[in-house]
Amino acid sequence: MYSISVETVINALYLVAIVVEAMTAAIAAGRRQMDWLGVCVLGSVTALGGGSVRDIVLDHHPLSWVERPYLLFVTGGAALATIAIARMMPRLRHLFLFLDAIGLVVFTIIGCRIADGLGLPLVVVVASGVITGCVGGVLRDVLCAQVPLLFRAELYATVSVLVALTYLALMTSGVGEGLALLGGSSIGLLVRLAAIRFHWSLPKFIYGDADY
Amino acid sequence: MYSISVETVINALYLVAIVVEAMTAAIAAGRRQMDWLGVCVLGSVTALGGGSVRDIVLDHHPLSWVERPYLLFVTGGAALATIAIARMMPRLRHLFLFLDAIGLVVFTIIGCRIADGLGLPLVVVVASGVITGCVGGVLRDVLCAQVPLLFRAELYATVSVLVALTYLALMTSGVGEGLALLGGSSIGLLVRLAAIRFHWSLPKFIYGDADY
Amino acid sequence: MYSISVETVINALYLVAIVVEAMTAAIAAGRRQMDWLGVCVLGSVTALGGGSVRDIVLDHHPLSWVERPYLLFVTGGAALATIAIARMMPRLRHLFLFLDAIGLVVFTIIGCRIADGLGLPLVVVVASGVITGCVGGVLRDVLCAQVPLLFRAELYATVSVLVALTYLALMTSGVGEGLALLGGSSIGLLVRLAAIRFHWSLPKFIYGDADY
Repeated sequence: MYSISVETVINALYLVAIVVEAMTAAIAAGRRQMDWLGVCVLGSVTALGGGSVRDIVLDHHPLSWVERPYLLFVTGGAALATIAIARMMPRLRHLFLFLDAIGLVVFTIIGCRIADGLGLPLVVVVASGVITGCVGGVLRDVLCAQVPLLFRAELYATVSVLVALTYLALMTSGVGEGLALLGGSSIGLLVRLAAIRFHWSLPKFIYGDADY
Repeated sequence: MYSISVETVINALYLVAIVVEAMTAAIAAGRRQMDWLGVCVLGSVTALGGGSVRDIVLDHHPLSWVERPYLLFVTGGAALATIAIARMMPRLRHLFLFLDAIGLVVFTIIGCRIADGLGLPLVVVVASGVITGCVGGVLRDVLCAQVPLLFRAELYATVSVLVALTYLALMTSGVGEGLALLGGSSIGLLVRLAAIRFHWSLPKFIYGDADY
Repeated sequence: MYSISVETVINALYLVAIVVEAMTAAIAAGRRQMDWLGVCVLGSVTALGGGSVRDIVLDHHPLSWVERPYLLFVTGGAALATIAIARMMPRLRHLFLFLDAIGLVVFTIIGCRIADGLGLPLVVVVASGVITGCVGGVLRDVLCAQVPLLFRAELYATVSVLVALTYLALMTSGVGEGLALLGGSSIGLLVRLAAIRFHWSLPKFIYGDADY
C-alpha cells in the first residue's frame, strides 16, 4: 500500500513535470518564432528528451513515450496550450520557476530510480539522475542554436546532483522510499529557489581567446 | 510478386532520397565553407541520420548503414559529386525541391513501415515516420549552428505527419500496400509542392523577450 | 604476454587521451564563461562522447563510463584541473596539440578494434574509428553553439580515416597487433603534426548564398 502511493505520487509529479517543461520550451520556441508544429516538437523533445537519452545510454528499452504514447499528446498539448495563454505567461513567471524546479527534482529522482533498478553503480545512478533532469533543457537550447543555459545558469545541474546524492543517501540509510523522496525533493527545491532568489551561482571559468 | 515490387519501388526511391538529401546537405556545407571530407560527413549524416536516430530510439539494430555499408559510399559520393556540379545547382533548383519532397515522403513511409513491423502503437508509428523524414535535416542544421529550418519552414514536418496518417489510414482500410504507398506519397508531394509554390505555412508563435 | 602488453599500452594511452580531450574542452568552456560544473560536464561529454555515440550506434552496451564509472572522475577532474592551471595553458600550447593528436589516434584505433571485435564489415570498422575519434569534438562544438571545427580544420577527420586504414591494412597483412598499432599511430601523428605545422588542409567547398 505504501509503495503504491510513492509510485502514484511520482507518476503524478512526472505528468506535472513534463507539462511544465513542454510549456517553458514553447516559450523558447516563441522567441524563435517557430510555427505551431515546431512548438509542439520542441516542447515534446524538451519534456521527454532527458528520459529518452537516459534510456538510450543505459540500453533501457522501450523509451517512456514508446511504451506510453499518450505522453506525446500531453507534451504536444501543453506546448499548444502555451500559445493560447501566452499573454498570461509574464504574470505566471514565478509559478513557472517554481514548477520548473519541481520538474528538475522529479526528473532527477526518476532517473536515479531507473538506474538503481538496473543495478548500476552509484556514480552511474547519479549520472542517470542528472541526465534525466538536465538533458531536455540542453536539447532545447541546442535546437534553438544557443549555448545551453545549463552550463551557466543558477545552480541548475548542481541542484540535480544534490538531489541525487540526498535521495541516495536517504535510501541507503533505510528511512524508506517516501522519506527519501521527500528529503531529496525538499533540499533540491530549497536550494534551487534560493539560487534564483539570491542569484547564487557557481564560480565561472573565464578564459580569454587571446590567452591561447 | 506484388509485394516484391512494392519493396523494389521503395528501395529504389530510398536510394534516390538519400542521394538527394546528401546533395542538399552538401550545398549547406558549401555555404559554411567546409572542406571536402566535411562535405561528405555532413551529407552522410543528413541522409542517414533520420533513419539512424529512429533505429536507436526504437532499439532496431543493426542500423541501415551498419547492415549495408555501401550506403556510406552512396551518400559520400553524392555529396562529393555536388562539389563537381555546384555551378549547375542554381539551374537545378526546382528539380531538387521536387526530389527533396520525394525524399521526405519516402523516408516518412519507410519509418512508418519499420515501426509498424515492430508492432508498435499507432502514435509511435507516426512518430517513427516523422523522425525518419525530418531528423536528418535537423542534424544538418544543428551541425551548421543554426535553428532547424524544420521548425519554421513551409509545412515540412506537417507534410511528414500528413503522409504518415494517410498511409496508415489506407493500410487500415485494406486497399493494399501499393495503393497506400501511392496515396500517401501523392498527397504528401502535392501539399509540399503547393506549400512551396504558394508559400503556405502554419501560423507562427511569436513571443517577445520583453514579455517574460 | 605480448597481447597483454598491447592492451596495457592502449589502456594507458586511452587514459591520457580522455584527460587531454577533457582539458581542451575545458578551455573551450572557459571561452564561453561556463561555470565550474559546466566545465566538468563539457569536459566529460567531449572526452567520453565519441565512444558513447559509437557504442550506441553499434548497440555495444554497456558504455565505457557505465562499466567503469571512475572514468567520469578522471574527465571531470581533468577539466577542473584545467581551471587551476589556466594561466599556464598558453605556454603548454604545443604540448597540448601533440597530446590532442595522440588522443585522436588512440580513439580511432580503439574504435576500430571494438567494431572489428563485433565482426562488422570493413567500412563500418573505419566509420567506428572515425566516430570514436571525432564525435567528442563535434559534441563540444555543438554545445558551444558553433560549427564543428572538424568540418573545417587541419585534416582532423582525414587523419582519423588514415589511421583506421593503416591500422586495418597492417592487421590484415599479419604483422601483429603491436606493429599495426605502432604503424597506424605513427602515420597519424606525423600527418596531423605536419598539417598543423604547414597549415595543410583539404580543399574547401565554397558555395555562395546568391547561387542557390
